[in-house]
Order: sequence, then C-alpha cells, then structure tokens
Amino acid sequence: MSRYIKGGTVITDTLPSIVSYGTAVGRMEGEGPLGSCFDYVSEDSGFGENTWEKAESRLQQHAFEQALLRGGIAESDISFVFAGDLLNQCTGSAYSMRNNGLRFIGLYGACSTMAESLCMASVFADNSVGALCAALTSSHFCSAERQFRFPETYGGQRPPTSQWTATASGCAIVGAHSDPPYIRALTVGTIVDMGIKDANNMGAAMAPAAYDTIKTHFENTGTKPEDYDLILTGDLGFVGSEILRDLFLQDGVTLGERYDDCGLMLFDRETQDVHAGGSGCGCSASVLCGHILPGVKSGKLKNVLFAATGALMSTTLVQQGESIPGISHCVHISFE
Amino acid sequence: MSRYIKGGTVITDTLPSIVSYGTAVGRMEGEGPLGSCFDYVSEDSGFGENTWEKAESRLQQHAFEQALLRGGIAESDISFVFAGDLLNQCTGSAYSMRNNGLRFIGLYGACSTMAESLCMASVFADNSVGALCAALTSSHFCSAERQFRFPETYGGQRPPTSQWTATASGCAIVGAHSDPPYIRALTVGTIVDMGIKDANNMGAAMAPAAYDTIKTHFENTGTKPEDYDLILTGDLGFVGSEILRDLFLQDGVTLGERYDDCGLMLFDRETQDVHAGGSGCGCSASVLCGHILPGVKSGKLKNVLFAATGALMSTTLVQQGESIPGISHCVHISFE
Repeated sequence: MSRYIKGGTVITDTLPSIVSYGTAVGRMEGEGPLGSCFDYVSEDSGFGENTWEKAESRLQQHAFEQALLRGGIAESDISFVFAGDLLNQCTGSAYSMRNNGLRFIGLYGACSTMAESLCMASVFADNSVGALCAALTSSHFCSAERQFRFPETYGGQRPPTSQWTATASGCAIVGAHSDPPYIRALTVGTIVDMGIKDANNMGAAMAPAAYDTIKTHFENTGTKPEDYDLILTGDLGFVGSEILRDLFLQDGVTLGERYDDCGLMLFDRETQDVHAGGSGCGCSASVLCGHILPGVKSGKLKNVLFAATGALMSTTLVQQGESIPGISHCVHISFE
Repeated sequence: MSRYIKGGTVITDTLPSIVSYGTAVGRMEGEGPLGSCFDYVSEDSGFGENTWEKAESRLQQHAFEQALLRGGIAESDISFVFAGDLLNQCTGSAYSMRNNGLRFIGLYGACSTMAESLCMASVFADNSVGALCAALTSSHFCSAERQFRFPETYGGQRPPTSQWTATASGCAIVGAHSDPPYIRALTVGTIVDMGIKDANNMGAAMAPAAYDTIKTHFENTGTKPEDYDLILTGDLGFVGSEILRDLFLQDGVTLGERYDDCGLMLFDRETQDVHAGGSGCGCSASVLCGHILPGVKSGKLKNVLFAATGALMSTTLVQQGESIPGISHCVHISFE
C-alpha cells in the first residue's frame, strides 16, 4: 500500500517492479548515440501510414508490442493503460489503443507524460489495483512540427534555443514486486509558470518546474543528489539543463556529473542538427525505456531519479501572449 | 484498499466520500431546467477575461473555489488535482491551476473526463494516497466552437444531430469515508470505434462505448439496472441516448425511466436551441456536481451509475477521413 508523505510525494511500500519495457523510434533517433538501444527503428518516418498522425499511432503500437514481447506478456493481461501524447486531443494514443479492449486512462502532461503515466501505473500497481499497468507515450517530429510550428514543407528557420521533437515512443509495464527495476517513490508536480513566452525556448519554460519537483522530492523523501547515480530530466535540452543546474547552484547544490537530460542523450548535437536537443513525449520515454531501465535491470545503475518535464502550452494561448506553464513529475527507480 | 475485479472494474472497499462539490456555468446553462442548482452563474460569457480560452480557465477556477467553499476546505488541503478539458493541450485546466502549488495530474478523456477524474480521485482516496483529491473539468461553448467547428462569428449551420457544448464546470472532492455520497465501485472504459465518421453526430460515436462500459460494469459487479435509481450517461444527447437504449434492448434489457443523459438534462430542448442536447466536459460535470450529488447527499437518490462519455477525435483526424473512437468510464455513487 502506498504511503503518502506530503507535497505530491508517494512512497511505494511494496516496491512495484517494472516488469517489461519497449521502444520504437524513427531513423534519425536510430542514428543517434543511443541507436543500438532501441527495439524497433523504422527507416520509414511514415511507419507505413499515409498521414503523420496515423504514423505516430503506429509508432506507439510498436513500442507497446515490444514491451509485451520482451516480457512475454499477453495483451489481455494488461489491466490498465495510462497513455498520452502531444497531439491535439491526444489522438496519438487514442487511435493507437482503439478497439483493443484494454482499459484506457488518457493523460496529458505534454513532454512530462512518461513520468506522469509511470506515476499513475506505479500507484495502481502498488495498491494492487490491477495486475499489470502500462505507461505509454509517443511523439513524432512531423506531426508535432505541423501542429505546433509550421508545415513540414515550409522549411521555417529554427532558433538556437529550439528543440527537436523526437520521433519515438516508449512503454513501461509496472506490476507487483518481483525483479528490478523497482519503483521506490514518486513526486507529482505542480504547474510552475515563471513568465517565459518564447515557444521556441521550451527548456527555459520547463526548467523551473523540474527544479520545483526534484527539490520537493529531495525534501519529502530526505534524499539528496548523492543518493542517486543519475538524476535525469525529460527534455530540458541544453538551455533548460543549464538553467536547472543554476537554480540548484543558488541553493548551494551542485548536480554535477550525476545529472543528465534525455534531450541531450538521444541525439548527438555535434553531428545531428537538433539545436538545443531533443524533446517530445517520446524523447524521455525512449531514453528511459531503451537505455535507463536496462541499466537499472542489470545493476549498472542503482538509483535513478527520472523527472520528465512538460510545457503545458497551446499555440492558441501563445498567440494570445500568454506565458508557458511547465510541469514535471519524478519517479525514483532503483536496482535494490 | 481497492479490490480489482477484472475488465477495468474496481471495488472501493473503504467507500470514499465525495466530501464536497462545486459548479460554475454560463448564462444559458443558468436559464436551463437545472439553473437553480448551480453555485455560480455568470452573465458574462467571457468571465471577465479577454479570450474564450482564458474565460474557460476562469470558469474552472470558479467551480473549484465553490467546491472548496462548500466543504470549508483550504486549497492547500487538496493533495492531488485530476483535471482536464477539451482544449488543445488541455490548457483550460493547465492555466486554471498554474502557480497555485497544487499537485496536478492532467487527464484527457474528452467529455468522459469528469468520470475519468472521479475514477482516479476515488482510487487514490480509497488507498489513502493523499487526503483530498479533486476531480475537475470544464468546457466553454465559444472556445470549443472555434477549435472544433467554426469561428463564433461565422454562424455555421448546425445539423439536427449536433450537440451544444456547455459553458460549464464541475468539481468533486473525494476523501476518506465520512458522510455520503460514497464511491462504491468504478469501471474504467475501453476505446470503442464503430466507424462513425460524422463529427456532427458525437452521440452516435459515443453510445457504443457507453454500452460497453455500463454492460461491463453490470457483469463485473453482478448488478443490474434495477439496482440503480438512476443510470446517467455523460452527454449522448437525444440521438446517442436512443442508440444506447436500443443496444441494451438487443440484450433484452430495458433501461426505461431510470436512464437519463446529462446532455438532455442541462438544457430544455423545447425552448433552448441546442439541437440534440448538451455536450462538453462541463456538461456532465455540472449536472453531476450541481444536481446529482446533492440528490445523493440528501438520500433522495440511493444509487447512481454515472457514465460520462467522450469522443476521442481531433479535427485533424476527422479531416483525414478517420472514424471517431469513443470512451466511457463509470462510477457507482451511493447514499449508503
């Protein structure tokens, strides 16, 4: 049974296991530094579909199927699917899961959705509400570009602070305590808006939310950065990561080498033209499920604090001159 | 502690209480048959804001504040807020809750969101994950019209099957067992798509999902229609409600007088020009929190099965010729 502390922090006393995980990515992600980690790399960015939106749903299905396959899990054994994505009305997830008979809980946390879904799946699993709960999310560069910025064919200029939406999906399946990785604790975030209005600088908009959630998690659990091998934000990218380091430095806390960001890990910024780094729900989902969870499973990583970050904006609100609220949820994943 | 049955059904063994609720609506909803039930009726559809999107966020804040007020609850006593709405990237909820320090879990279930958020809040409360959990959602006619259909000033022709998005918001706060109303059980829905492609006939798109969820709930809990005073769908409207009755009739089950639909209750279809009835996340939320919960609290209603329904489409996918997936989640709310 879960133990609620305060300020959004939940201690999962049964230590639920992440019993399986799967990933699917596009070609560019497959060519990146983590390319060999992914279960499914598509040469075709359309994933065999005739629109980008349907391509994203197909991509998400691949990640889900890979998670089932790795765990030897029948689809019908999944009690609940917690899923979401960036598309308007979260259609990436809805169309990926339609008519499969699975119980579906749609989430929206922008690029924080992988942590949000993992939080929900963990709370359900920790309290035996269902046997196996899937946390699933995706993003697709082309569907995101045309929805949030410009049509793909327009060839708009991208400023240096902009990030590159990953064509990627990840799925983690959480169940009762068995083998590692384990979920030890989690902190649900609060919406932080520090007044950033530049839709091409999501990292700056999200960094204060990541700071708030990670700091709250440290306080509520009595842990400190040294207790983790890796503190991993979702996709702050280069700009947001530096802001996060600075915010902690103001408290006298040096994140140092133990800190990294999924947006900086998925692509090689030297050779891949992604400006400030990767982003999108699928960025942190694929890095977590493709690279981090295998590391915890093998014991190479003992304690990871995974804090995906999301910018809760819409183009409409940005056009109305509104600033961009950010949110971050974090999950402590451990080997022991 | 919750007891998971199968097929998305959870029995809440501690019987969490809905400790408070609040509503806010626009003028037209205030002039409808349930007008006197609502806590806050605004004469100004802009709710003092200069855009429809900001108006919706303000509307949602009013419902949330009314729920706090009725329950004598301090905002800081809310452990988690489960919220969502119809706007792209769920900005109605994100902007309504930003910078208030509350732990926020963003949901997307289209017009099923009130039931979805109530399901999540109930599972959390039943397992003592947090003390008080808010379920909150909203919709606004003007923000929805321009996003999903035409600009307000265009004056597009509406077909008879179309529904009228309610300008309304409702909030229910769930906590540990105390006074009624109680949450007894819930069933999380699955995504059902029977091939309806007409975005002006949401009722038809959603009815099969409502049928699936309610039928599953009956089966998994061993209950039948006669066990409920009221079986209430979210916003199937006139067309979808008739389809739902027909689907049950094919099983030899007559829903009869005990069945009603929030979309048919919020407005008077004789005198208010809403075609097939009301819709929008706020429709079922305001009817539930303004009319039904007080009825259960007083004992006038003993057992209500609340099944909000959502159409998980986006304009993009509809334009691509895709059919419209529906989902419905249901919650059994009782006096005893």
